[in-house]
Amino acid sequence: MTAPADNPLVTGRTAGSPLVRACRGERPATPPVWFMRQAGRSLPEYRAAREGIEMLDACLTPELAAELTLQPVRRHGVDAAVFFSDIVVPVALAGVDVRIVPGRGPVLGSPVRTPDDVAALPPLDPGALAPIVAGAAGAVAQLGTTPLIGFAGAPYTLASYLVEGGPSRDQLRARALMRTDPTTWAALLDWCADVSAAFLMAQVTGGASVVQLFDSWAGSLSVADYAGRVAPHSARTLTGVRALGVPVIHFGVGSGDLLAEMHRVGADVVGVDWRLPLDEASRRLGGAVPLQGNIDPALLAAPWPVLADHVEDVLRRGLAAPAHVVNLGHGVPPDTDPAVLTRVVELVHGWRSPVI
Amino acid sequence: MTAPADNPLVTGRTAGSPLVRACRGERPATPPVWFMRQAGRSLPEYRAAREGIEMLDACLTPELAAELTLQPVRRHGVDAAVFFSDIVVPVALAGVDVRIVPGRGPVLGSPVRTPDDVAALPPLDPGALAPIVAGAAGAVAQLGTTPLIGFAGAPYTLASYLVEGGPSRDQLRARALMRTDPTTWAALLDWCADVSAAFLMAQVTGGASVVQLFDSWAGSLSVADYAGRVAPHSARTLTGVRALGVPVIHFGVGSGDLLAEMHRVGADVVGVDWRLPLDEASRRLGGAVPLQGNIDPALLAAPWPVLADHVEDVLRRGLAAPAHVVNLGHGVPPDTDPAVLTRVVELVHGWRSPVI
Repeated sequence: MTAPADNPLVTGRTAGSPLVRACRGERPATPPVWFMRQAGRSLPEYRAAREGIEMLDACLTPELAAELTLQPVRRHGVDAAVFFSDIVVPVALAGVDVRIVPGRGPVLGSPVRTPDDVAALPPLDPGALAPIVAGAAGAVAQLGTTPLIGFAGAPYTLASYLVEGGPSRDQLRARALMRTDPTTWAALLDWCADVSAAFLMAQVTGGASVVQLFDSWAGSLSVADYAGRVAPHSARTLTGVRALGVPVIHFGVGSGDLLAEMHRVGADVVGVDWRLPLDEASRRLGGAVPLQGNIDPALLAAPWPVLADHVEDVLRRGLAAPAHVVNLGHGVPPDTDPAVLTRVVELVHGWRSPVI
Repeated sequence: MTAPADNPLVTGRTAGSPLVRACRGERPATPPVWFMRQAGRSLPEYRAAREGIEMLDACLTPELAAELTLQPVRRHGVDAAVFFSDIVVPVALAGVDVRIVPGRGPVLGSPVRTPDDVAALPPLDPGALAPIVAGAAGAVAQLGTTPLIGFAGAPYTLASYLVEGGPSRDQLRARALMRTDPTTWAALLDWCADVSAAFLMAQVTGGASVVQLFDSWAGSLSVADYAGRVAPHSARTLTGVRALGVPVIHFGVGSGDLLAEMHRVGADVVGVDWRLPLDEASRRLGGAVPLQGNIDPALLAAPWPVLADHVEDVLRRGLAAPAHVVNLGHGVPPDTDPAVLTRVVELVHGWRSPVI
């Protein structure tokens, strides 16, 4: 890796892009907009390209991953690509038996619950990440000045899948382990932090200009548990990309009480879900932190005037923060009409702040 | 119905019980404790009694519903029974095609999504609730001075099931309808309010001394949507029982930002999930509202010293509120060892506040 100041991946091609500028706390003339899960089932071209190919296979085929990454940029004109992958990809590449079951999510061959289970987790061979570097590089080669966002699962969310053996509503087993055996818990979260860190670094090596850490399940935690038993491991995940100067977006669902702690682990931008208006979120962060969000995905199914009013409300409230990356407050629902997403991008790009 | 002051169901038998006193804002010598979903799959005697009997059939067989209601009182010595039933029972009794699918939850024969669907919702014939009155009365006849808690689903949670057609993660369709067609939404929520109100009233007629309104999905809403588009209908649900002087507990999951609004609809006690410490919850309510909660259900699977420390922490933080009904922060997980619940009851009953 080259040092931050010389790193062309970070300081070159995309430095003037609206996304990177907003992540640095600036307000470009046009607010940047992208959508979580924009590379996915909402697009017919995605469903065609994925036909008959399992999720993990698609993630590990660089040409396909690059193509799926580019599709929504071509179609919607969003201000960023997000790498097509899954948070469990580095877990699978480490040799853990995990499959991504359609309609359900990641499912483990056997859950990781005991000290021996954790001790037996294999280290991730950096060479195994070659398809990720290649996939990201393949997308970047076609993106011009549009940034690629790399992403990874935060240790708590990743560990929850490992302990529960799959998706779960309230992460009961993971939270029981956290409180029952803090040593095993810390070892598990460090393992998760290290595979996610390597996954992020592979995407940056391939040319990602920004990364997003997803802590989708963090909202099931009290502030005290998050701060004491999770945040240090999330910070560990980000050490490497921060040393390279790559801006970090940090997102969780139902995390309105955790925003300050989620900022503190080393985020430049805090993602907010649809529940909390951005002006209130900014207030909770002392008015000093760029925000991402938070169009309600439910309203993508509403008539255009209802959705447009809502998007404009989000844009106005986003002015309370020093900078704003426009996004949904959660992922694109699979049954979303893609034309609606394109229209949202047009609205955002045509919007001029009434204040600034 | 007799007037509140003369109503023996409300002012008689259970008026001196720790639960009713705590609901009135008093601190009995021993804090009352019960568990959401205490009548259910965690008990072997429950699984035996339910063997081969569908959920809705069990709810509508008064002797069985009474027996299932009493089981956890006998076993654990909790301070209240909660009526064995389900929030969709009044929906089914109104004639809507709904089944409770094991491991999944309520599933509608056809979802309710259009103005015509809502207009076609049948009124609930009060006579159809006779098995509920009989089931509650059967339990009350054996409860002595231990109060029976009646319950119902709040209109938003009930409407979400109707609109989505079953359980859903984020209630996307329900929230889209809420914003798209406020008139249809209001009509739907009023229908839900009325069937839930009748369901509550049937349980009070059978002898319930306290009621709990469950708004399990309210946590998916912003404060503004909750206050403007949901709360008035929740208040409507409670009008009848409040006129009778029956204390009301109001509970939602992930509702830390909604506590004040949930109190305002007419609750005497606000239930808090496991995420928010009770002292912080009490602060958000101005220190003036009795609280219920909020033992983390995840810790029921932890070793006893870990759980006991946690329960004592909950008890201490509960002193910040004017009164405290001890409970979990969500329902009993089905795989809970019932002996652990009994031990929690013993701990709570043996606890003496270090302050008061």
